[in-house]
Amino acid sequence: MAKKEQTNSSELGFGQKNYNRRTRLITQGGEFNVVKEGMSRFQGLDVYHELISMKWHKFIALITVLFFAANLIFAFIYFASGAEGIAGPSPDNKIEDFLRSFYFSTQTMTTVGFGQLSPDSNFVSAVAAFESFLGLLGFALATGLMFARFSRPRRNLEFSQNAIIAPYRNNLNGLMFRFISSSRNQLIEAEVDVAISYWSEEEDKRIFKAVNLERNKINFFSTSWTVVHPIDEKSPIHGLDEAECNKRNVEVIISFKAFDDTYVRPVYDRMSYVSEEIKWGVKFAPMYEASDDEKIHINMEKLSSTYEAMLY
Amino acid sequence: MAKKEQTNSSELGFGQKNYNRRTRLITQGGEFNVVKEGMSRFQGLDVYHELISMKWHKFIALITVLFFAANLIFAFIYFASGAEGIAGPSPDNKIEDFLRSFYFSTQTMTTVGFGQLSPDSNFVSAVAAFESFLGLLGFALATGLMFARFSRPRRNLEFSQNAIIAPYRNNLNGLMFRFISSSRNQLIEAEVDVAISYWSEEEDKRIFKAVNLERNKINFFSTSWTVVHPIDEKSPIHGLDEAECNKRNVEVIISFKAFDDTYVRPVYDRMSYVSEEIKWGVKFAPMYEASDDEKIHINMEKLSSTYEAMLY
Amino acid sequence: MAKKEQTNSSELGFGQKNYNRRTRLITQGGEFNVVKEGMSRFQGLDVYHELISMKWHKFIALITVLFFAANLIFAFIYFASGAEGIAGPSPDNKIEDFLRSFYFSTQTMTTVGFGQLSPDSNFVSAVAAFESFLGLLGFALATGLMFARFSRPRRNLEFSQNAIIAPYRNNLNGLMFRFISSSRNQLIEAEVDVAISYWSEEEDKRIFKAVNLERNKINFFSTSWTVVHPIDEKSPIHGLDEAECNKRNVEVIISFKAFDDTYVRPVYDRMSYVSEEIKWGVKFAPMYEASDDEKIHINMEKLSSTYEAMLY
Amino acid sequence: MAKKEQTNSSELGFGQKNYNRRTRLITQGGEFNVVKEGMSRFQGLDVYHELISMKWHKFIALITVLFFAANLIFAFIYFASGAEGIAGPSPDNKIEDFLRSFYFSTQTMTTVGFGQLSPDSNFVSAVAAFESFLGLLGFALATGLMFARFSRPRRNLEFSQNAIIAPYRNNLNGLMFRFISSSRNQLIEAEVDVAISYWSEEEDKRIFKAVNLERNKINFFSTSWTVVHPIDEKSPIHGLDEAECNKRNVEVIISFKAFDDTYVRPVYDRMSYVSEEIKWGVKFAPMYEASDDEKIHINMEKLSSTYEAMLY
Repeated sequence: MAKKEQTNSSELGFGQKNYNRRTRLITQGGEFNVVKEGMSRFQGLDVYHELISMKWHKFIALITVLFFAANLIFAFIYFASGAEGIAGPSPDNKIEDFLRSFYFSTQTMTTVGFGQLSPDSNFVSAVAAFESFLGLLGFALATGLMFARFSRPRRNLEFSQNAIIAPYRNNLNGLMFRFISSSRNQLIEAEVDVAISYWSEEEDKRIFKAVNLERNKINFFSTSWTVVHPIDEKSPIHGLDEAECNKRNVEVIISFKAFDDTYVRPVYDRMSYVSEEIKWGVKFAPMYEASDDEKIHINMEKLSSTYEAMLY
Repeated sequence: MAKKEQTNSSELGFGQKNYNRRTRLITQGGEFNVVKEGMSRFQGLDVYHELISMKWHKFIALITVLFFAANLIFAFIYFASGAEGIAGPSPDNKIEDFLRSFYFSTQTMTTVGFGQLSPDSNFVSAVAAFESFLGLLGFALATGLMFARFSRPRRNLEFSQNAIIAPYRNNLNGLMFRFISSSRNQLIEAEVDVAISYWSEEEDKRIFKAVNLERNKINFFSTSWTVVHPIDEKSPIHGLDEAECNKRNVEVIISFKAFDDTYVRPVYDRMSYVSEEIKWGVKFAPMYEASDDEKIHINMEKLSSTYEAMLY
Repeated sequence: MAKKEQTNSSELGFGQKNYNRRTRLITQGGEFNVVKEGMSRFQGLDVYHELISMKWHKFIALITVLFFAANLIFAFIYFASGAEGIAGPSPDNKIEDFLRSFYFSTQTMTTVGFGQLSPDSNFVSAVAAFESFLGLLGFALATGLMFARFSRPRRNLEFSQNAIIAPYRNNLNGLMFRFISSSRNQLIEAEVDVAISYWSEEEDKRIFKAVNLERNKINFFSTSWTVVHPIDEKSPIHGLDEAECNKRNVEVIISFKAFDDTYVRPVYDRMSYVSEEIKWGVKFAPMYEASDDEKIHINMEKLSSTYEAMLY
Repeated sequence: MAKKEQTNSSELGFGQKNYNRRTRLITQGGEFNVVKEGMSRFQGLDVYHELISMKWHKFIALITVLFFAANLIFAFIYFASGAEGIAGPSPDNKIEDFLRSFYFSTQTMTTVGFGQLSPDSNFVSAVAAFESFLGLLGFALATGLMFARFSRPRRNLEFSQNAIIAPYRNNLNGLMFRFISSSRNQLIEAEVDVAISYWSEEEDKRIFKAVNLERNKINFFSTSWTVVHPIDEKSPIHGLDEAECNKRNVEVIISFKAFDDTYVRPVYDRMSYVSEEIKWGVKFAPMYEASDDEKIHINMEKLSSTYEAMLY
């Protein structure tokens, strides 16, 4: 059961004046819904952050383009310094000459250095020495970035597409959502905190309340976890129906915290469901499956499966 | 002494309906005994996890095979483009020609580039430029993975093969197990939590209880640690004998937590003993050994040694 | 609200005798204002620390110089051993000979090895073998350092240039400052602690007091955070005016702590405002901006913007 | 002030039976004074640990030897396969032939590949392909290890050579020791715990007691820290003189904990003073020095300086 019975927007870190009635605080991707302008004045582009968080295909494309562009530049330098700077088969025309310069550049930058093309002047020798040095540094950088990308933590929780309002027990309904770790990492000491935010017509501002949960901590997060907020009298959505929740622009804000035993580090995640993403009068279908091998079997495709159920 | 006197399956994170009577929750290797199906839909294969957790000989074999396969592909490309694309000694036949293409490829990919074989057409020059670039990226990747493998935490606790029921004190027996860190890392602030799970015939479900320990925390985990659960009236196995424990499918679930001062990170581990792995009426043999050098000597081979002892 | 109502200098870790009246404890850059002499006897230069904390342009310059210097040394060795040790086009004069040795060295150290220059004596062969080995190790080292530099945490908080004394509420003024994270990292569970230090004429020493804050913890540090210390009777600056604060050499010492969810690690920062950096009778101008896209917009250029306000 | 007033050996993690009267628990280097025998059966040599913790000059020597040895092996293979497998200047005799094989091997393994020596048979081509592949992997490994060595935390506390018994206040003497961080890292939230252990003649075993400290936590560990244990009636060494402390084999066991703000990780350290390392009737000389630049100046060479002082 969550300790703090009530909270407000500043406790969560969102000023009350910064957003209008319909502003969502947390995106479904777990990001803060905030745009910071004028940041470049302070820190410029956070190049490192960009490089390790962009998609792999973009990253590979980027370094390929950089490699190509760098070789073009060096090719121009060699080409401009004259064909006689590079020993090897003589080029027939300007195009051949430039291509020869380009291939000499790639063979230098990658340090493959076949030798069928080789520097034949002091200028080309010096530039080639610099280029091979630069090439090695560039690949050193790429190596570091690749490792950083690999070891970068990823979001590995899958939440049910909808939160649901389901019959709970003792004439109480519950707000529920379900999630599971989609990686093979072992998560332990998992904790969840839930706050409900809504627009108060009377006070003309957003109200935030931390809400009680049936259980907010588990030791081993090995299977799916269905979090239940019992909608009793203390709940900010007690007595409301679906239409009223939509009218009040209810947002369910979820903070998750656990320890990833495989990568040996804490794991945090955030999620939010706005009122349109809450389904009323359904229950979650079970995810476990019978089996003969005495292991616990979970079918992840059923994560968002629900069936109809009469509310109290 | 553990604070919480009682727990249940959902607190540990295992739903009560997900397993049958004989399902083990934790394997002796410390893994959750859970299979997640349909994961590929969510995240595909967790390639990184596979690459850093596979055995070293498999990892080395895999990248060797990848290196060979990639060179085969490039060899085919060079071979298909005609023997005249590569300068060097002329091949006598198709096989020699292909081998020449293959060796040219390896010399390009590893950037060794002897030059006795060298590109002699624009097509081969371009492909070779690309191949050497690819080679460097590949080795950059391998470098990152090797470091990740090296720095990956390993399981470094050795538990006694069996938990034991031994005479403890004041007419009490105790459930005991013993473990030691098998690495040279210095573990500090070590904590252990134990829960006992059993099948309740009356309630037709698994019951979980966190149990009291004689001591659940030590400052320096420098030698072996024998954890003792005194089987007093509060214990879920109080009054049971070996046969009854087997009948109830008792499982002793252990969580370990410490701080690794050498690698500067927290260390977690899990372990479980099922009833068949509990030995009754024995005591652990001492592990320390006399010596002249004023150091504390521990013989790790005696970790699971026991001798007979009369129970109360 | 901060728990501890009072503190002193030894609690903060600054002995009371170590500084004179005007010594600042924390620089605006967040560093301790301490010089340790005679350290070299203990640990020598902390080379690693230097290498990963120097500016990028210095780092690049340094390894370029090292590369150049190392090649000069090897060039001298080859040159001294005689021109006939290197096969290739014969040099016309001593200068050409030395340059040839230098280029041979660069081609060896970067492992580009074109082959137009190649070792032609046992001595040169052996030195070249060693040089290429050294080159690879050097670039291995550079790779490691680059990654360490990249992954090194940076200071990413921007504080308002001045702390301010502004009207707060209920006839109370408040000491306020404002800060924001200038990176795209998501900071969560942010905490701030504030102590006020001043020179006591009566006691002839510095006094330190931890002071109350309107709020000292927020869950999501997504926008700017204005920290408020209400100047009530318990405040060490209650009843003082600007001149008196200057006379007492007031210093506001700030400790910040949060968890960086992007890089998965804790973040700490320190900051201090001395009395000359406190502006009296102003309020912070709002930073949020209206927008149509239902996101929260913050203009970081307004971080230090204030406007005049009558104090109570 | 430390919370727990009393502790015992099992709480610290040292069994009471494992050592004799004069066994020291913690070495001055901060290591557990424990030898684990028979470990090889469990985990073999912890190669990684060895490789990242050996001295730099040994590490460099080791990989140089490995590089040399690997090239010797490949040289033998090339040599055994016949001189005609390698194209290039013909060797005059067997020794020249072997050296040629050796240099060909180094040029292959480092991927420098000048080409004056090049593979001239299928066998040599295949072996060379494998060797260059191996070379790259080896240097990838070395890169990973270098980074691991660099980023490995080091012990960076310097303790005074002796603990001292000095006059404290109000007719009380105090047990004191002093330490300082010898690196430039900023340590914050530093905590220290002290236990005193001694041999009890009456009980014929070692007794352990956690003792009170004047202060056991500071926010910024920026200068030196003198830890004081007031020897009041609760102290286990109350009323004892130097001879009696020696007779009882007193050991002062110190645990240190802080957060390293530069490398963003917790820092732990241990230290112990045995009775022979405790000086009676002296005080620590001040370490701070006057200066003009309004910074706090600390002279680390005075860390262990003391002067005579009359005890109460």
